[in-house]
Amino acid sequence: MNFSSDTAAPAHPKVIEHLAQANAGPAASYGDDGWTLQAEALLSDLFEAPLRAGFIASGTASNALALGLLCPPTGGVICHQHAHIYCDERGAVEFFSHGAKLLPLTGEHGRMSPEALQDILQKVDERFVHAIPPKALSLSNLNESGCVYSAKQTARLASIAHDHGLSVHVDGARLVNALAFTGAKPAELTWASGVDVLSFGLTKTGAMGAETILLFGANAERFDELEARRKRAGHMPPKQRFVAAQIIALLEDRLWLELAAHANEMAAALADGLQNLGVPLLHPVEGNEVFAALTADQSAKLQEGGAAFHVWPDGSARFVTCWNTEPEEISKALALL
Amino acid sequence: MNFSSDTAAPAHPKVIEHLAQANAGPAASYGDDGWTLQAEALLSDLFEAPLRAGFIASGTASNALALGLLCPPTGGVICHQHAHIYCDERGAVEFFSHGAKLLPLTGEHGRMSPEALQDILQKVDERFVHAIPPKALSLSNLNESGCVYSAKQTARLASIAHDHGLSVHVDGARLVNALAFTGAKPAELTWASGVDVLSFGLTKTGAMGAETILLFGANAERFDELEARRKRAGHMPPKQRFVAAQIIALLEDRLWLELAAHANEMAAALADGLQNLGVPLLHPVEGNEVFAALTADQSAKLQEGGAAFHVWPDGSARFVTCWNTEPEEISKALALL
Amino acid sequence: MNFSSDTAAPAHPKVIEHLAQANAGPAASYGDDGWTLQAEALLSDLFEAPLRAGFIASGTASNALALGLLCPPTGGVICHQHAHIYCDERGAVEFFSHGAKLLPLTGEHGRMSPEALQDILQKVDERFVHAIPPKALSLSNLNESGCVYSAKQTARLASIAHDHGLSVHVDGARLVNALAFTGAKPAELTWASGVDVLSFGLTKTGAMGAETILLFGANAERFDELEARRKRAGHMPPKQRFVAAQIIALLEDRLWLELAAHANEMAAALADGLQNLGVPLLHPVEGNEVFAALTADQSAKLQEGGAAFHVWPDGSARFVTCWNTEPEEISKALALL
Amino acid sequence: MNFSSDTAAPAHPKVIEHLAQANAGPAASYGDDGWTLQAEALLSDLFEAPLRAGFIASGTASNALALGLLCPPTGGVICHQHAHIYCDERGAVEFFSHGAKLLPLTGEHGRMSPEALQDILQKVDERFVHAIPPKALSLSNLNESGCVYSAKQTARLASIAHDHGLSVHVDGARLVNALAFTGAKPAELTWASGVDVLSFGLTKTGAMGAETILLFGANAERFDELEARRKRAGHMPPKQRFVAAQIIALLEDRLWLELAAHANEMAAALADGLQNLGVPLLHPVEGNEVFAALTADQSAKLQEGGAAFHVWPDGSARFVTCWNTEPEEISKALALL
Repeated sequence: MNFSSDTAAPAHPKVIEHLAQANAGPAASYGDDGWTLQAEALLSDLFEAPLRAGFIASGTASNALALGLLCPPTGGVICHQHAHIYCDERGAVEFFSHGAKLLPLTGEHGRMSPEALQDILQKVDERFVHAIPPKALSLSNLNESGCVYSAKQTARLASIAHDHGLSVHVDGARLVNALAFTGAKPAELTWASGVDVLSFGLTKTGAMGAETILLFGANAERFDELEARRKRAGHMPPKQRFVAAQIIALLEDRLWLELAAHANEMAAALADGLQNLGVPLLHPVEGNEVFAALTADQSAKLQEGGAAFHVWPDGSARFVTCWNTEPEEISKALALL
Repeated sequence: MNFSSDTAAPAHPKVIEHLAQANAGPAASYGDDGWTLQAEALLSDLFEAPLRAGFIASGTASNALALGLLCPPTGGVICHQHAHIYCDERGAVEFFSHGAKLLPLTGEHGRMSPEALQDILQKVDERFVHAIPPKALSLSNLNESGCVYSAKQTARLASIAHDHGLSVHVDGARLVNALAFTGAKPAELTWASGVDVLSFGLTKTGAMGAETILLFGANAERFDELEARRKRAGHMPPKQRFVAAQIIALLEDRLWLELAAHANEMAAALADGLQNLGVPLLHPVEGNEVFAALTADQSAKLQEGGAAFHVWPDGSARFVTCWNTEPEEISKALALL
Repeated sequence: MNFSSDTAAPAHPKVIEHLAQANAGPAASYGDDGWTLQAEALLSDLFEAPLRAGFIASGTASNALALGLLCPPTGGVICHQHAHIYCDERGAVEFFSHGAKLLPLTGEHGRMSPEALQDILQKVDERFVHAIPPKALSLSNLNESGCVYSAKQTARLASIAHDHGLSVHVDGARLVNALAFTGAKPAELTWASGVDVLSFGLTKTGAMGAETILLFGANAERFDELEARRKRAGHMPPKQRFVAAQIIALLEDRLWLELAAHANEMAAALADGLQNLGVPLLHPVEGNEVFAALTADQSAKLQEGGAAFHVWPDGSARFVTCWNTEPEEISKALALL
Repeated sequence: MNFSSDTAAPAHPKVIEHLAQANAGPAASYGDDGWTLQAEALLSDLFEAPLRAGFIASGTASNALALGLLCPPTGGVICHQHAHIYCDERGAVEFFSHGAKLLPLTGEHGRMSPEALQDILQKVDERFVHAIPPKALSLSNLNESGCVYSAKQTARLASIAHDHGLSVHVDGARLVNALAFTGAKPAELTWASGVDVLSFGLTKTGAMGAETILLFGANAERFDELEARRKRAGHMPPKQRFVAAQIIALLEDRLWLELAAHANEMAAALADGLQNLGVPLLHPVEGNEVFAALTADQSAKLQEGGAAFHVWPDGSARFVTCWNTEPEEISKALALL
């Protein structure tokens, strides 16, 4: 009953298999290898678009490198006030962007409202040198309340951002869960809705550590600069084939979708069970996260019974389900209540 | 016949085995797991000292995080003019230290001379606010000419550095080769000779990607700051057990020493063969690297015959041997000449 | 009728006189001159304390250098959400601190409440490496609503900050106005209330460009680091005597107090007049700034009549009075309404 | 007999006069004032070209802001190994550029040779992500040996730099002396020879503190970014009219040329005298600096007699003459020998 995080889960056995297969003979270092080429091609297929891909072992670095590419030190990045980049990455964006400023917006269920975005952008006066002009918009999808930005919602926000000269980034640490929930094609939630750069995560899906920065369309021109920044930041793994092999493992036969769909199902089952027990949920369950308003008594019962979960700053309990969560874990947890 | 780099080699099968074993059930993320604890304990045993260890997937990050810890933005880091941190890491130290300056020294066979170090440090006037005072010394061992700093040489340089208030760092991407060559105990080439912080690499030894920053003695007090910087730089892997498991694989039964000794032997055999053929060597072979002055004709013969190696800026050929280099590869390469 | 800013005012004639006097013969550069020594001594007298002083020509640099000294890149600075450092300095603190994060608090009339501060600090968990721990508190006095922090209010906030290990900084661009308004001694609003480092401004008081970073008590140990950072940032003027001479001009015979008191009186007169005309004021007038809720008609009348003032983001009109504001300007402006 | 530095000199009386004149009535802050406009127009006249000008109070900031504009954090700046930016500005370029690397070249009498520049640029491989590609060239004119780059020499170096995609910057802290010595027109030593951005100093000429970053030609497009960086770095003086007024004072009636020519004459007289006494000079005297190989005895005699000068790292004595150096000071100094 470990619902603490999808980073607490092991990797899927196929990932280990692919690592073992990739571990044969020499291969050029720093990304000049066949696995890297193959992984990039698979990503291009998956997203049905030409793109450039930078492989990285950590989601924090993936977000921060991407935003450092899109926003100069003198600019700002608009994000939700609960965004991971704002609250939980120890200032990584500030570090990689050399001091750009995160500009937080409020919004229900972790979603920025188009009106709030429009409102803040309309007030920007580029000639007023004293204030920081926003240069990028960063959405998390799934967001930090476990909710989805639909293709339509993404497109609306991206359109407003582009109208004011901002680039659009998506923190897709759990994009696979959003894709599984909505049934949208990867293109629909990303470049076809105006996303310029995507931090596409597979670590939480079932890899050991495999993240990709995807540059869509004209943004591919920034690839050389991304490579320079990856190297400079120590995020260009010498034996990069082992990151690429993990990505191949999860993209082949759409394993990622199967794993994400399973995690989502488990979350839905937990959410149903909690609601049947009268436990209020704080947000719609649209992926693999459930935020519940437990009483102190309920929390204690779960913890004593061996269920692991995190208590959130607002006092709620966050449950995260994974590719390997068993239905029995859900029923056992519900039984404790 | 791939002598291009030890980062072109695959991982040792034991590493894959340990990854597969570590891939069982949930584990706390970001380093609060049993493998991390075990790996830190094994390192403490290996170095016969209390220490704190930060696990990282890239050597560039390991050096740059370590030096960012030891040198403020207003200070300087003394290194050899051929140091990897000076020539080959795209300004990573400058990035992680927020603009500290690398101060290069010359010296034969990649080694700084104590006299040169003494000379530069004697001239430093801390009150002269216009110039950058050195605050750290960074040695590579093996160095970039494939040569060793002995315990005595390390201690001499460290002592001069300490006398002038500098901290001492070792870039130990190939420290295992230096240990195998000298027969010294790990303690002798590090803290017992005055090394404060070690970037201890195992990727080139036979891991997929596993490096450790080791804080010796009183430097352990910097561990919380290191953790903050690791997180901020995206170098705190969420599923850290998979880095730790690689380290365990290589430390158990002193596998690292066996692998490094083999690589060194292969380099020695290649060096012998080259010398027998009259090919001049540029540096003593004290690890797993051979620098040879090939003629254009010899280079062409090797490359046409399928031997991979790098041509260095000075025109020489660098051959790197690995844990899995076969004696037949050496003889085949020599036969081509 | 220029009420746009106290930076739009000329310098007081005594300042020019002192510049002319200081312009005799050679003087050591970069602060090794007699005027610098004298100015530091006068500041020590004024604040009745030992201190070290760093002279600078801009208030933005004064704040950012001070906070870069008090807060590491991995930490945060708590400030009011309307603080100049948060809204109007183009990310200077982020630049000088290498990416530290400003953590904004709300509070009426530009003042942070002790309860809000206590609340945020109680929740900090230093061991949670993902979030940014506050390391400094920055108050503006006068604050950005033209209001004062009394000695008691300052002491209360500073005490809470110190209890949680934070350093305390005051942005004193208009501290002289707060001193003139409260009648407090300089010591009382600063070190005696727990302020560690003060950005003490005299540019708005009547200098051409003269600001000082004052390090009180044990903070004087940070002076060498301040000097290094001043030089590195290009804020150590080669002919520093000309900054010091301005400070001497304003400290001699307490000219600063006379000028600040005059500016405050003019603001009080304007405030009285506006209130008599039924114009609502947004904040108590405790210095040289008046924030008024003008109707569009009233704004137009003033502007057409030649009165300069700034319209604030919330739609209110900000009037700033200066050392050279004439009573006739006040009555003329009021007459326009 | 103060030959320590031209920053030890007072300002020319005309500068004080202009400051007093500018000190009348209110003026818009942060550069929206008439003096700023007039100074920019005078500079455009002087350089016979359209340009944009950013006014700053320190030469260190002027160089570092200019180079931060021309070189990204992942790039390098080629300069002479004795360049002020490399040796004497405490890492200011590294700070303002967020960690770009200075790449020092050798060269006689402080001048880079075109061959050395060509040689280093030919070897650059942009696709080799591990090394830092040069993105800007920075020349000092007068250079740090007191020597001039002629228009022809500047054009040759700039042409090589441009051919390899580098921008060209001149540190013109003493450009006026080079202009006075060569008789060249300001255009000839700058944009007409390929200079993109000039740090044009007048502090050493006779101002209190007045420097300008000049953006020539297409580089004027970078002006908005320069403004943002000036503000962020605290180098946009609120009462900017007082910097502009100093510049006006020195440009009117070509006062700068008169002052520079005088300083150069005094240096020539000193050099002649020293050579007549048999004192060897280290560099040709082409401006207001004389580098002499004094014996210990000669040094002592001068110092005991009250002559101030700096002993350089190579043991030589540097004498700097100024706008107000008197012929009597020269003869008195020579008499001491």
